Amino acid sequence: MLAEAIFTGTELLLGQIVNTNAAFLSKQLAAAGISLYRQVVVGDNLERLREAIDDARRRADLIIVSGGLGPTEDDLSREALAAALHLPLVEDQKARENVTRYFAARQRPMPSSNLKQALIPAGGRALDNPYGTAAGVFLEHEGKIFVLLPGPPREFEPMVREQLLPLLEPYGARREVIFSRVLKIAGLGESAVEEALKDLLHGTNPTLAPLAKPGEVTLRLTARAADTEKAQQMIRPLEENIRRRLNDYIFGSDEDTLEGVVGSILAERRLSLAVAESCTGGLLAHRITNIPGSSDYFLGGVVAYSNEAKIKFLGVAPETLAAHGAVSREVAAAMARGVRRAFSAAIGVGITGIAGPGGGTPAKPVGLVYIGLDVQDLVEVQREFFVGERENIKWQATQGALYLLWRHIRQFCSP
Amino acid sequence: MLAEAIFTGTELLLGQIVNTNAAFLSKQLAAAGISLYRQVVVGDNLERLREAIDDARRRADLIIVSGGLGPTEDDLSREALAAALHLPLVEDQKARENVTRYFAARQRPMPSSNLKQALIPAGGRALDNPYGTAAGVFLEHEGKIFVLLPGPPREFEPMVREQLLPLLEPYGARREVIFSRVLKIAGLGESAVEEALKDLLHGTNPTLAPLAKPGEVTLRLTARAADTEKAQQMIRPLEENIRRRLNDYIFGSDEDTLEGVVGSILAERRLSLAVAESCTGGLLAHRITNIPGSSDYFLGGVVAYSNEAKIKFLGVAPETLAAHGAVSREVAAAMARGVRRAFSAAIGVGITGIAGPGGGTPAKPVGLVYIGLDVQDLVEVQREFFVGERENIKWQATQGALYLLWRHIRQFCSP
Repeated sequence: MLAEAIFTGTELLLGQIVNTNAAFLSKQLAAAGISLYRQVVVGDNLERLREAIDDARRRADLIIVSGGLGPTEDDLSREALAAALHLPLVEDQKARENVTRYFAARQRPMPSSNLKQALIPAGGRALDNPYGTAAGVFLEHEGKIFVLLPGPPREFEPMVREQLLPLLEPYGARREVIFSRVLKIAGLGESAVEEALKDLLHGTNPTLAPLAKPGEVTLRLTARAADTEKAQQMIRPLEENIRRRLNDYIFGSDEDTLEGVVGSILAERRLSLAVAESCTGGLLAHRITNIPGSSDYFLGGVVAYSNEAKIKFLGVAPETLAAHGAVSREVAAAMARGVRRAFSAAIGVGITGIAGPGGGTPAKPVGLVYIGLDVQDLVEVQREFFVGERENIKWQATQGALYLLWRHIRQFCSP
Repeated sequence: MLAEAIFTGTELLLGQIVNTNAAFLSKQLAAAGISLYRQVVVGDNLERLREAIDDARRRADLIIVSGGLGPTEDDLSREALAAALHLPLVEDQKARENVTRYFAARQRPMPSSNLKQALIPAGGRALDNPYGTAAGVFLEHEGKIFVLLPGPPREFEPMVREQLLPLLEPYGARREVIFSRVLKIAGLGESAVEEALKDLLHGTNPTLAPLAKPGEVTLRLTARAADTEKAQQMIRPLEENIRRRLNDYIFGSDEDTLEGVVGSILAERRLSLAVAESCTGGLLAHRITNIPGSSDYFLGGVVAYSNEAKIKFLGVAPETLAAHGAVSREVAAAMARGVRRAFSAAIGVGITGIAGPGGGTPAKPVGLVYIGLDVQDLVEVQREFFVGERENIKWQATQGALYLLWRHIRQFCSP
């Protein structure tokens, strides 16, 4: 099955946004064994979009159009497909529900312009879009398949996975699959990871590909096989080999996050947590509370930006601040202990550092961060030095804190 | 001058890399006043690449091909261009120097496969590439311009800027520039914004394009003119018109963020701020502290996830919690007031709500959020209802809080 994809949007032709849908779709189709031979980007222009669809259907069996399903006059994918195939646009009940439901859920009146989102080319079927107003369209016509999907990635991506791919199965998408598993590493830099796995990096099936992100290295293990189970079998010995070498750093796999893994351990062992943040400014609490159910173990936090707040809410002694400065091993320890006690938690974390761009000195430069951890009265402080912009340093500091926490609760509290 | 761009690379069709060259090139061409009407991505296949070049030259005056200039057998852009135009490939002295120089500088012997990088279609000229082995190609043929550039972004980007754009000037790249200005709106949904500006959405120069993001709508005003100053002049009356209609919602422009704008006003008016967060879990403090210099006005915050924390740190009365529940107008007000007093700040913000996915009831569903604001003892509470996933609701709630804050300090505290 040969596929061609068309991406519509003047913002793509002006370079205002990067076409991430193209990479996403290509990857998904490759994994499903469908060959994507061509991607085309055109602007929000009826004639050029119609022409692109017309060209594509002469070459390909499957034509996917991303974007142009919104309510404005610039949104022309429905019209272009109908024009290319000489089909009328008709109102579709499911598409209509998709748009009315959206406004009903928000208790807002629906602008009349949205009504055009209920139209689809005759003979097609609407694809449910739980993430926005625009239903997708699936149409078989003269032996070719045409698919329209909404452009925003947060709608496009789940619709490809949940709606499009299952629909393509009966159309002879080859049974070869590409299966990937991702291992996630913290507490170790990219070069150290590559050094440890040097001899494993040149395999062809499965392949092993490291990718560095701030405060994290991911390893992608990929195998091609007749089915998913076989691919998983091929990956297993490679994964076991890697785990033997990097056990203390692999905190999770696939969609795991450090905050999610830490949360699971805390919930399972019934340990409560409170955090005191200076330079990370709330990001640590934010990441912890991104996990559904975090209220079971996360009692709360204090963002103590000023010295007064550190004294008042965390019980940091004014003398400690005076003697060592706010960014010091001693204050990080006092913050961890102080917040643990103030919230009566099992575990307290305290972070103090210099996120920049201002505030650095030769002795205490931007990027210097102390992370304190108080686990049931055992206090440890880690000194870190991060490089990057302000937000990047904040992120790495929270990553460092979560890693320290993970290492300790995994080890210290194991049954 | 109409342009079409072709990007070659199987890795693009497999989704292994994102096509950042497309966005970069589009932006550069737009700024130079060249209209890019189409982008096409094809794999490393001679026939399909030749066909793409052949199609493009029937539509466009300028055809740019990115990628396929390397030394391997998969690199076929030279061959495809020569085939499309029925020209022989000939060795070019400059292209040959480009590749031999590269190896000489690294004191490595040149593999013989690299010799093909010295070939270009007859009649063309080589474009110097100081960043790699592959020279580019510039060729005028039957009134059309063909350009081949290397694919790696670290080679492609400087070559577009330093080699391609200067070469296009004599070819009537109009002296026109495209200038955009972005206005940023909070507190109003996309449909309401479009409704208010309906009559302005159909202009052609300047154009006005709305884009919805969670908790924010951006308006892009774009003008084409002979120079930037003239374009700015064309945009000004449109901007003034929009500002007259949506003055209470336009919080900034271009790279402004709501937290940055709020921070500037707080700093300028010497107002201090403290925040109490329940459902947003630290995200509000995180956003505020992303702004460099926020320590001048931001005193700190409390993430009060538990009722105990709300009582202990924020002085919320247990009776208030018992009578109205933690998610209530009364508790939001008490949190705002409590955190303002605890930190001795001029302004306090309190947020309480249900971020989901659990914890909702028919009376208090997921997405219900109360935002309390205490500005120098004047308390106001806003009731909001957000739809989305947990993180999305957290984001929208902080956006709502920052918008409420902005509206108040702008108005209440204006000199």
